[in-house]
Amino acid sequence: MNKISIISAVVVSTLSFTSLADGCGSPLLPSWKDGSSKTAIIDFVMKTTSEGSDSFVAKEDRIAVFDNDGTLWSEKPFYFQLVFALDQIKAIAPNHPEWKNEEPFKSVLADNMQGVMESGKEGLLKLIMATHSGMTVEEYQESVDEWLKVATDKRFNKKYTELTYQPMKEMLTYLQDNGFKTYIVSGGGVDFMRVWATEAYNIPPEQIIGSALHYQYSYNDGNPTMTKDASLLTLDDKEVKPANIQYIIGKKPILAVGNSDGDHAMMQWSTSQPHSMAMIVHHTDAEREWQYDRESHVGRLDKALDDAKSRDNWHLIDMKKEWCVVY
Amino acid sequence: MNKISIISAVVVSTLSFTSLADGCGSPLLPSWKDGSSKTAIIDFVMKTTSEGSDSFVAKEDRIAVFDNDGTLWSEKPFYFQLVFALDQIKAIAPNHPEWKNEEPFKSVLADNMQGVMESGKEGLLKLIMATHSGMTVEEYQESVDEWLKVATDKRFNKKYTELTYQPMKEMLTYLQDNGFKTYIVSGGGVDFMRVWATEAYNIPPEQIIGSALHYQYSYNDGNPTMTKDASLLTLDDKEVKPANIQYIIGKKPILAVGNSDGDHAMMQWSTSQPHSMAMIVHHTDAEREWQYDRESHVGRLDKALDDAKSRDNWHLIDMKKEWCVVY
Repeated sequence: MNKISIISAVVVSTLSFTSLADGCGSPLLPSWKDGSSKTAIIDFVMKTTSEGSDSFVAKEDRIAVFDNDGTLWSEKPFYFQLVFALDQIKAIAPNHPEWKNEEPFKSVLADNMQGVMESGKEGLLKLIMATHSGMTVEEYQESVDEWLKVATDKRFNKKYTELTYQPMKEMLTYLQDNGFKTYIVSGGGVDFMRVWATEAYNIPPEQIIGSALHYQYSYNDGNPTMTKDASLLTLDDKEVKPANIQYIIGKKPILAVGNSDGDHAMMQWSTSQPHSMAMIVHHTDAEREWQYDRESHVGRLDKALDDAKSRDNWHLIDMKKEWCVVY
Repeated sequence: MNKISIISAVVVSTLSFTSLADGCGSPLLPSWKDGSSKTAIIDFVMKTTSEGSDSFVAKEDRIAVFDNDGTLWSEKPFYFQLVFALDQIKAIAPNHPEWKNEEPFKSVLADNMQGVMESGKEGLLKLIMATHSGMTVEEYQESVDEWLKVATDKRFNKKYTELTYQPMKEMLTYLQDNGFKTYIVSGGGVDFMRVWATEAYNIPPEQIIGSALHYQYSYNDGNPTMTKDASLLTLDDKEVKPANIQYIIGKKPILAVGNSDGDHAMMQWSTSQPHSMAMIVHHTDAEREWQYDRESHVGRLDKALDDAKSRDNWHLIDMKKEWCVVY
């Protein structure tokens, strides 16, 4: 244990002194139990922000990237953005009588989720195009906003924005308070996330990176519009994540947090430099949230799980053992 | 003249009181002569930052976008990035004996600029691909950095980074001091600009948007690399500028500054909302810089020039009449 780790440990235990014995309710990261993840986060922040230390990182280089689905909010039983798409399909189905006989729309209208999932990537893309394009960004975002106000998750009977993880929001705040620029780098749609993520995570629209359809600008006789085209601009997943980080941020992050193999490349890229760290939210809590990793279709965590176990600066967050509360 | 305009006029004249009669050397925007542009800038900043005013704009929405070539630094006789590409072609020509008989390389090696320009967009793209791809971003940026240290503009006998406009740098600082987030949105290469623009304009890499080739991430046996591919990701010009602003920033800017029809769409888009402004650097100074507009091949200013003359919140900056110094 180096000097800074010892200091961190003292900080953690001191801060916990006035609260519960397990660390829950302590002033710093109150929803995190004392343990390796909480120590790793505090250790990392202290190391990179202590002026004069060998591991000090200038403020402008404190870039932290977070996946969203399964990292900052839940992603089961289906990505929430997919649920939005399905609800939209049902809402506009009266205008599309042909959908009754056309997959994957037929399955959507019959509430046959297995059929929807079996339509594969191509089918899902059809659903996205049918519900996410052919309108202005403004119109699209209004429909997302309306949906979020009323849609609820069946299992938890909560609004989707209430299924954001309290411990992760505390981690974001802690980083922001220490001069980190926090970004979302998600496979989810950038226009979808920008509707609600700014308020949920205190992350401005320009620090949200995600998948996108092509944008079409039109002068429109003096009332300019920005339309969402039915063609893919970027699918922000796997190797595309570090590529988009390079393109949009232009700096290598020193912290990357994810939960699946879709975040593996981003974590490799970020930790290929000194003083960096990767963290993985491990879904171990079947009771309070969900339990899944190597065998899951959504949010599969396999290769990155191996790396997390073998690399010193990669840490697994055990949701069940380390979080005082989930939501 | 509204109340805030009167205040601005008083501020300008008061600040100028202790300096030269023409406004040069005044504490605020010292390289701008008193006149319509200086008043428009100060008026705009006061209007949008005065709390309680009807035209107040929250800090997080104070997004200002600037073109670079011809707006923040010179672009004549050729885009400086093109000069870099030509110098690189000459440097690596010994490895490409076939270039002696292949256009546009043949023209480059013969210093025949007319031949280079006649190769058109396709030819220029060939030069870009030959000098900007097939290497890591890091390697590319090192070569730009090395070039900038030694390359000089023939006419002014200055380094290219010394050909940034002093009045525009003061305008950037003034905006930044008043809570504006300043972005570059340029047709120039984003990797090229990020080498030097941060220092020149106090604009961080993540606020620089430009043209780009596709990025290719590779794990590379544990030493991850980011390579510049020989295919175009985005040509950040004309209608693509507002589209990239939507994609990357996700907000409509309230100030757009450019100098050519390549910035027209970005200025239309930005000023399609209340309390916004567009400004155009008009190259009217053949002696201290260059004089061109409607007939120029590089930096053609035609349609946007008409708009600037007919719209209340669009302003022409007359370089010759309004700038105390250029560089």
